[in-house]
Amino acid sequence: MQSSAATLEIACGAFVDESTIDALFDELFPICRSITGRGLRRSLAIFERYMPLEIEGVPSGSQVFDWTAPPEWRIRSARLTGPDGSVVADLEESSLSVINYSAPVDAWLTLAELREHLHALPSLPTAIPYVTSYYQRRWGFCLSYDRLRALPEGAYHARIDSEFVPGAVEFGQCVLPGESEAEIVLSSYLCHPSLANNELSGPLALLAVYDRLSRWPRRRFTYRFILNPETIGSLCYLSRYGDHLRQTMAGGLVLTCLGGPSEKLSYQLTRRGNTLLDRVMEDIASEGVIPLEIRAFDPTDGSDERQYCSPGFNLPMGQIARTVYGRYPEYHTSLDNKEFMDIAAVARSASSIERILKRAEISWTYRNLAPYGEPQLGKRDLFPSLNSPDTRQHSSDHLSDERQFLKRSMMILNYSDGESSMIDIAARCGCAVGDLEPVLEKLEQVGLVAIEQGRSNG
Amino acid sequence: MQSSAATLEIACGAFVDESTIDALFDELFPICRSITGRGLRRSLAIFERYMPLEIEGVPSGSQVFDWTAPPEWRIRSARLTGPDGSVVADLEESSLSVINYSAPVDAWLTLAELREHLHALPSLPTAIPYVTSYYQRRWGFCLSYDRLRALPEGAYHARIDSEFVPGAVEFGQCVLPGESEAEIVLSSYLCHPSLANNELSGPLALLAVYDRLSRWPRRRFTYRFILNPETIGSLCYLSRYGDHLRQTMAGGLVLTCLGGPSEKLSYQLTRRGNTLLDRVMEDIASEGVIPLEIRAFDPTDGSDERQYCSPGFNLPMGQIARTVYGRYPEYHTSLDNKEFMDIAAVARSASSIERILKRAEISWTYRNLAPYGEPQLGKRDLFPSLNSPDTRQHSSDHLSDERQFLKRSMMILNYSDGESSMIDIAARCGCAVGDLEPVLEKLEQVGLVAIEQGRSNG
Amino acid sequence: MQSSAATLEIACGAFVDESTIDALFDELFPICRSITGRGLRRSLAIFERYMPLEIEGVPSGSQVFDWTAPPEWRIRSARLTGPDGSVVADLEESSLSVINYSAPVDAWLTLAELREHLHALPSLPTAIPYVTSYYQRRWGFCLSYDRLRALPEGAYHARIDSEFVPGAVEFGQCVLPGESEAEIVLSSYLCHPSLANNELSGPLALLAVYDRLSRWPRRRFTYRFILNPETIGSLCYLSRYGDHLRQTMAGGLVLTCLGGPSEKLSYQLTRRGNTLLDRVMEDIASEGVIPLEIRAFDPTDGSDERQYCSPGFNLPMGQIARTVYGRYPEYHTSLDNKEFMDIAAVARSASSIERILKRAEISWTYRNLAPYGEPQLGKRDLFPSLNSPDTRQHSSDHLSDERQFLKRSMMILNYSDGESSMIDIAARCGCAVGDLEPVLEKLEQVGLVAIEQGRSNG
Repeated sequence: MQSSAATLEIACGAFVDESTIDALFDELFPICRSITGRGLRRSLAIFERYMPLEIEGVPSGSQVFDWTAPPEWRIRSARLTGPDGSVVADLEESSLSVINYSAPVDAWLTLAELREHLHALPSLPTAIPYVTSYYQRRWGFCLSYDRLRALPEGAYHARIDSEFVPGAVEFGQCVLPGESEAEIVLSSYLCHPSLANNELSGPLALLAVYDRLSRWPRRRFTYRFILNPETIGSLCYLSRYGDHLRQTMAGGLVLTCLGGPSEKLSYQLTRRGNTLLDRVMEDIASEGVIPLEIRAFDPTDGSDERQYCSPGFNLPMGQIARTVYGRYPEYHTSLDNKEFMDIAAVARSASSIERILKRAEISWTYRNLAPYGEPQLGKRDLFPSLNSPDTRQHSSDHLSDERQFLKRSMMILNYSDGESSMIDIAARCGCAVGDLEPVLEKLEQVGLVAIEQGRSNG
Repeated sequence: MQSSAATLEIACGAFVDESTIDALFDELFPICRSITGRGLRRSLAIFERYMPLEIEGVPSGSQVFDWTAPPEWRIRSARLTGPDGSVVADLEESSLSVINYSAPVDAWLTLAELREHLHALPSLPTAIPYVTSYYQRRWGFCLSYDRLRALPEGAYHARIDSEFVPGAVEFGQCVLPGESEAEIVLSSYLCHPSLANNELSGPLALLAVYDRLSRWPRRRFTYRFILNPETIGSLCYLSRYGDHLRQTMAGGLVLTCLGGPSEKLSYQLTRRGNTLLDRVMEDIASEGVIPLEIRAFDPTDGSDERQYCSPGFNLPMGQIARTVYGRYPEYHTSLDNKEFMDIAAVARSASSIERILKRAEISWTYRNLAPYGEPQLGKRDLFPSLNSPDTRQHSSDHLSDERQFLKRSMMILNYSDGESSMIDIAARCGCAVGDLEPVLEKLEQVGLVAIEQGRSNG
Repeated sequence: MQSSAATLEIACGAFVDESTIDALFDELFPICRSITGRGLRRSLAIFERYMPLEIEGVPSGSQVFDWTAPPEWRIRSARLTGPDGSVVADLEESSLSVINYSAPVDAWLTLAELREHLHALPSLPTAIPYVTSYYQRRWGFCLSYDRLRALPEGAYHARIDSEFVPGAVEFGQCVLPGESEAEIVLSSYLCHPSLANNELSGPLALLAVYDRLSRWPRRRFTYRFILNPETIGSLCYLSRYGDHLRQTMAGGLVLTCLGGPSEKLSYQLTRRGNTLLDRVMEDIASEGVIPLEIRAFDPTDGSDERQYCSPGFNLPMGQIARTVYGRYPEYHTSLDNKEFMDIAAVARSASSIERILKRAEISWTYRNLAPYGEPQLGKRDLFPSLNSPDTRQHSSDHLSDERQFLKRSMMILNYSDGESSMIDIAARCGCAVGDLEPVLEKLEQVGLVAIEQGRSNG
């Protein structure tokens, strides 16, 4: 089987290029985001400049499956002052300095009283940890262990000016329509403050992929792009669009942790394990065109795919990452920064995801539109009008290009029965999916096959 | 994977203990049972003392699928007297002495004439064989081959005082209700006269199991206990309750030959081969907690499971034995007696069956009651309310107990989709089913999962 | 497992014996057949003498799925004369001399002008090739390469007296009814002029098989025999009978290339790959009773099975051949003649196909007519009325014939559930299908099983 690497190469004069990603990163990084509120809204607005996001919100207090949409967190300032008046932690300095969703406080405490409100990482003494307490009220500061250790006894002034007000859990989405109503869903989350690989790499790669796909001359699938706060945001999304996705979704990817030093992309299989993108990824991994590892589905860890792949939905949502959450010590700390993430790695990820999606387009299920008997290929100039023993070569060792094209046409037509994907048919032909692309395009052009309209079983 | 032997141990102060079984055996053994009539009725009445059997009968002459319910056999006396007046065979001496369902006779015969009415076993010259002729009228006596050989020429008086009268094929059943309507059916047969391992061990073990299960603090399944004459009795039963079992039956066991010298229990798979108890037994056999061999389903031999597993019903009925019918020479002869059977072996069998059923309870399919998205574990104190990098350990080599409990919770929730059993989920977790028991109980307690109500596909 | 070769031997005083096949061949061979017209009609009429074909036609111009039924080709004469008046090619000499469906011409041409209208095979310089141009109008002659090479310069007279008139695509069929409405379809094609192995061997073998099956004392299946011009003929057939076949067809064979020197028959699997005849052929191939190779389904080559196995129909149609098209150089040339084909080889093929069908009869799915509980075998003298330990042998090493017959009866009854075929049941019994034949016949005779009426899932 020959590689079809060529078909994965796409010339793309992307508008959202590496320098745009770089500038956007710098604008987004300092914002104190959370799962609700002003930081999230400002961040979504920045993405809206490049993609036509429609923003919706689920009001605080709404029942969302087993959850309740939380109130909006408004954080205005947060500062911890030491006995000598020096600033120990300050939101102005790092948006990680305060527990995300911290309750307000304005109090003088001894160091002993303060300790249970301070979070640091002994194992990474220079890092400020990222700590959240969305659903239980508490207040607290985060700081480096080095700083914590050096704190003197005395009276500390803890002041956090935050409040909880009725608001909404907001998310944004936009759609690039294609020839089929079957959808590929790309989703990333936007709620972590000042974290680079595990978080901003995801939305930034999503944007770059959006930009590239919007320039494709044709899209067979419809593509849906979603940005939401993690977990509660995808739950809110599913409460409104879950039924739609059940009807239309042919595949999907949660984009997360797409920067960092890892050479390989890392794909997590869907819960079903045999859907379109699962098979495309296995194909690509075995061809070695894009360095790619494949992970099993894991409902005990990860991101929004846990909601998409909950048993009530069981949607075909995979997850794609580069330097995976939890596998690097800087994860969820102030050391997960721009240097660690590397803008170039994010751009490479976006480019690879585009190539993966290009491959998905021709790996899907197509339907023979003339399935009763063989279509008459001769009248479409796909079969020789003269049938003579010297035009039929039966030595299969060395088929003429014309004869091979014809044989592949007949294979595609016979097996495009709504059950076999192009991956299955390529396997039957003993060739790569990419080798079928010109044949498939010809058959589409003469109207003999069309991409499956529904989401199919895949 | 660690063994979960502990979960199979049940403290049980059984009322039907070994000495009760012993006394019941002695009361039941001499009765001349058959598939109808007074002996069967007396035997059922003895069991009614300990379990609330409801007795029903299908009248003689009723069409029962391809069969006709036979008339009732009344046997009053049967004696064969030799030329010298000595008693050659007598019902008073052994209930095996007369062919079961023998026609009446009162005649003088020469030894030559008599021979075709005499049954003995040359291969086991001291044993009286157990012979039946339910559906074709004949008369005859059974005796040891030693005695047969020694019979002198002369005139013999054969006198059998029996008659065939309209009656009924009777059976008894009772139910121990549980949390689910899904039923486990335990069945044994009661029609053999004066035979120990292959027969009385079955009903006695059934009674002991009933007694133990009636004392369980909770029963997830509903348990149904049936006593009937073999073959025609289970056909009569199925003619009335077959449709009910098709709706409710999650598993079942025919109890037979549960005494004898064999060390191992012997389980015969259901016809489907992949039902709940098939998988539980395979689990237990591979763990080695209970010594157990597994036999293939065999429609050409065995007991009432042949009726339950006929193609029109195809119910999930297995069979459990210890010293299996047909594998020991004493089978169906007077040598299958109390000494051979061993009361202690029967008691051990009952104890093992209880442990098997305990395991079945937690091996079944459960249903996530909040299947859309993940349930919010935090509000139920099953998830840390504070999310910080030091509370998330990603070294899977050494998970904290708390983190392992959480991961197993999430696995159970994600896969309790009505298709995966706890056996499947344990395999995914890389642990024994027993290891999931505390997690499952917690999730049941907070209302997040419940046992499948219907019989499911299993 | 012992072989059941014996059951494949059938005594058959066939009327269509080898000498009849020989005579029919000589009558059919010279006829200038095509996919329509007088040659086809005359050929069908010859077959009608031996089998009650019903002839139908689909009128020229009719839409047939993606095709249009072509006009009828009337060819009266075709002669190419050289500069010296000598005959270069003449329809009178060989019906291969003119392109099948050649347009008319009457013109004088130079050798250079003529060349594009001449067809020869450099690789086989003594052979006249078989050339067709059904759907694009052109004219031309076919001749040996030796002759072509020797043609002198000069003026040639090309004269083809043909015309295209409204007519019909005709086909013929007849049915041998059997006990089940489930059908086995046998089809061959009749449109090639003066070609022996790849063509006449097929219809002649079909006729011989028809003759043999018409003499069977009983037929469980209904057998349908079809003769049609290749491709367009089977499309026309399917346009009228495809829906019927979807309801009734249990299996089928396209008969092609059944003569020639190959020792083995060659079976091409159906598209589904697991249908009745696929499994029968695999059984036979592994037993080695009939030398047989098995080929994968191939939609890019072959005969009418490509239409039956198009995705819209996906009928269980296999293909049987001996010396397969395209594997021998004489294919589609004048060298594919009677000597190459060998009448005796065709007769052997017919005999083997009869044996295969005989096996198919007992390999199919049967249905237990008393599926609830076990049927009462005793009342049908299939079970001993006296049940005694000495009549039950449990040493399975050496079962009595009677006991083995009983065990096989019980296996057939338990598994004849509409899903298991006799092949499946034989595998469970550890015997050959043929070993089950007497048991099956007995169970049919007493009314306990019957062949599946519908086409089943097979």
